[in-house]
Amino acid sequence: MSSSQSVSPQKTRTSPPVVLSRRWHWASRQAISFLMQQAVENPDVISLAAGLVDPVTLPVEETQSAVADLLRDPAVARHALQYGTTAGSLRLREQLLKYLARLEKCSVKDLGLESEQIVLTTGSQQLLSLVGEILLDPEDICLVAAPTYFVFLGTLNGLGAQAVAVKTDQDGMCMDALEQKLAELESQGKLDRVKLIYLVSYYENPSGLSLSAERRERVVDIAGRWSKNQKIFILEDTAYRELHYDGPVLPSVWSFDESRESVIQALTFSKSYSPGLRVGFGAVPKSLVTPICDRKGNEDFGSANFNQNLLAIVHEQGLFETHVEMLRNSYREKRDAMLAAADDYFSGLDGVDWVHPHGGLYVWMTLPEEIETSFESELFQRAAQVDEVMYVPGELCYPSATDSMTGVNASPPTNHMRLSFGVQTPEGIDEGMRRLASAVRFTLDRS
Amino acid sequence: MSSSQSVSPQKTRTSPPVVLSRRWHWASRQAISFLMQQAVENPDVISLAAGLVDPVTLPVEETQSAVADLLRDPAVARHALQYGTTAGSLRLREQLLKYLARLEKCSVKDLGLESEQIVLTTGSQQLLSLVGEILLDPEDICLVAAPTYFVFLGTLNGLGAQAVAVKTDQDGMCMDALEQKLAELESQGKLDRVKLIYLVSYYENPSGLSLSAERRERVVDIAGRWSKNQKIFILEDTAYRELHYDGPVLPSVWSFDESRESVIQALTFSKSYSPGLRVGFGAVPKSLVTPICDRKGNEDFGSANFNQNLLAIVHEQGLFETHVEMLRNSYREKRDAMLAAADDYFSGLDGVDWVHPHGGLYVWMTLPEEIETSFESELFQRAAQVDEVMYVPGELCYPSATDSMTGVNASPPTNHMRLSFGVQTPEGIDEGMRRLASAVRFTLDRS
Repeated sequence: MSSSQSVSPQKTRTSPPVVLSRRWHWASRQAISFLMQQAVENPDVISLAAGLVDPVTLPVEETQSAVADLLRDPAVARHALQYGTTAGSLRLREQLLKYLARLEKCSVKDLGLESEQIVLTTGSQQLLSLVGEILLDPEDICLVAAPTYFVFLGTLNGLGAQAVAVKTDQDGMCMDALEQKLAELESQGKLDRVKLIYLVSYYENPSGLSLSAERRERVVDIAGRWSKNQKIFILEDTAYRELHYDGPVLPSVWSFDESRESVIQALTFSKSYSPGLRVGFGAVPKSLVTPICDRKGNEDFGSANFNQNLLAIVHEQGLFETHVEMLRNSYREKRDAMLAAADDYFSGLDGVDWVHPHGGLYVWMTLPEEIETSFESELFQRAAQVDEVMYVPGELCYPSATDSMTGVNASPPTNHMRLSFGVQTPEGIDEGMRRLASAVRFTLDRS
Repeated sequence: MSSSQSVSPQKTRTSPPVVLSRRWHWASRQAISFLMQQAVENPDVISLAAGLVDPVTLPVEETQSAVADLLRDPAVARHALQYGTTAGSLRLREQLLKYLARLEKCSVKDLGLESEQIVLTTGSQQLLSLVGEILLDPEDICLVAAPTYFVFLGTLNGLGAQAVAVKTDQDGMCMDALEQKLAELESQGKLDRVKLIYLVSYYENPSGLSLSAERRERVVDIAGRWSKNQKIFILEDTAYRELHYDGPVLPSVWSFDESRESVIQALTFSKSYSPGLRVGFGAVPKSLVTPICDRKGNEDFGSANFNQNLLAIVHEQGLFETHVEMLRNSYREKRDAMLAAADDYFSGLDGVDWVHPHGGLYVWMTLPEEIETSFESELFQRAAQVDEVMYVPGELCYPSATDSMTGVNASPPTNHMRLSFGVQTPEGIDEGMRRLASAVRFTLDRS
């Protein structure tokens, strides 16, 4: 028994510090929280920042129909209200094999995938996080496009892993640059730390760009050839795959992995059906299924079984396909509204340029190099507080400047904006773009 | 460009090894998976192992009513189908303040808690995991009762943290033993690694025991006094709090923490409503809210908003209270059936003893020391394959024998069984206990 037991609590309770884990320190910067805070504090702002989906198109009637069906038979209802398994509902996974076959334009048999290889998660974000958890030790390397999805960069930071930027052009990540980076890492003795290549292959968040067909095939080949002492996996995030408005329908990177052992495809129903259900999934190489489920077992031992059964019915009843078709039409109109507004309000501004995406939810805009877009910048403050419009600063979408200390990543450009056309109506988009142009013009005039 | 580009893929693709993270290696042993596998392979087995809830009592009608309400107004429905925030639905968090006040038998004001301090998670398991993530670095220490909830031991393993066992008796974790262990760790220079004391305070899984009122107060005092160079938090898991059948209604450990800065209370609707919705939550000290949400942001940026809104309505409509009352009656009957069957079939067996729980889902049974209960034991094999009944081996509920290499934990006892009365009917429980007694008798006769 310690002698300190007799000491009065008041004397020793002098607010000892809360000591948090290294992982927390790695993870602590959260751009999303800042943006939500800004939105709450500035309620009249038109947000071109939020990555939410269009509220008007959310599937209320479809969900009413599916949930009525789910709860009609008490035995079926109870099954959905009971615990599921860590990997998720078999009823949904069977549907997802058929769904994936439709996406890949082949038969279920030709997918070369078993239902056990479909792992259901809380949005695809949890799948991305789980893949990171099981593959990446601190200082391990994941190669990413620059720019890329900023939430995943936060996940990599939280693991203490290093995101290494690879040059990107209009056709997505440059394969020559990827090989060059791998050679560079090998010459630095770091090739054995490379475990993952992360690709948002369709209408990337934030750039709106897709990886070209030729590069899709080539990246699988590159990952294979550079898997020297350990396997380098490709994590293909196809969150926006269904939101295709025009242009070519591209095969997935995953489809080029004939072994089915190199590419993890991460999909979600957050964009194509409802983010409030938080159902995502991965098509996972056999070698990773158990590791991912083991890790998920520690985190939550399974996502909501009820929601998985609900989505199974949405697919079984054919409600999904018609919903997605409606979504495409609605978002196409909004994309067109944003591009038209960009023409109207920005085409007179020197050095301002933007991507014309064939799908997804974002338009990536480039300003003259001297115009900073960060949260602290004059432009962001002016836009939020005077013109009442908000965007996501592009620099968030590059591996952070702290990593550039190691010399692996160049300093990120600071003159981009991610503009979302997901939430606003076509009229709101037009007005938001008008306001943003006003803020940009103000900042240009002062620079 | 690397010269290896010209090498034929086939030549170098000689199945490079999959190199998984250290975290995965720490997390890899999953007892639940083994049990589920056994259940699938032995369909005629009566499982007294599964920690599932009673399927018959799952709230089908309540959920029908709440979901109809949720989807009636398109604006409300769309809100639920949209993304929520990382910390969760404010509508539900407001209800949970009232709910917690009822549990703590005080007004919402006297709770001393703001709705921001309620963090919603995917079951309470995710809250337990998140608390571990933000507090525990590899080799940090969490003190636990012996035995304790085995899934949380797996979570601690997955973090590379050390679970240090504290002696437990009929009143739960022994406070003298806790102080002694802290003094011992201090003398070893390890006190600064102690970040957490984990307590399942009501009808612990697996032992069925509750921490006595006197010890609830004392543990808060002990955690405060031993917080010398860093704060030692208490993680109070009250998953079974609502499943109270008789005996005293105890105040929570959390209620004794007047500062509201030392105890995290983890609660769940998995036992009291539906595990298929996977809604749990924590009442969290202010200093930990942002760290937990930051980490959750990286893992999934929010659990299912739809389910949170659904449960808010279940509470608003008063459906929850009546459901829990029904549950208590149903489980009390099952608890009685298991205790009666234990009397009938086991009371003649020398050296066999069991706990009479006042709540929860489990009866903890002790066999003579020489009778092993592990998955590999004669008893488990006989029970599963001949008598067709399954239980959870008690040794899973102790910090693993691998830790005892360090000398901190004694070797766990190997002669306990966790028996669940949650899933089976009273008749099934009786038959399961009869079968189990047959297997025990067979093993006793051969020993």
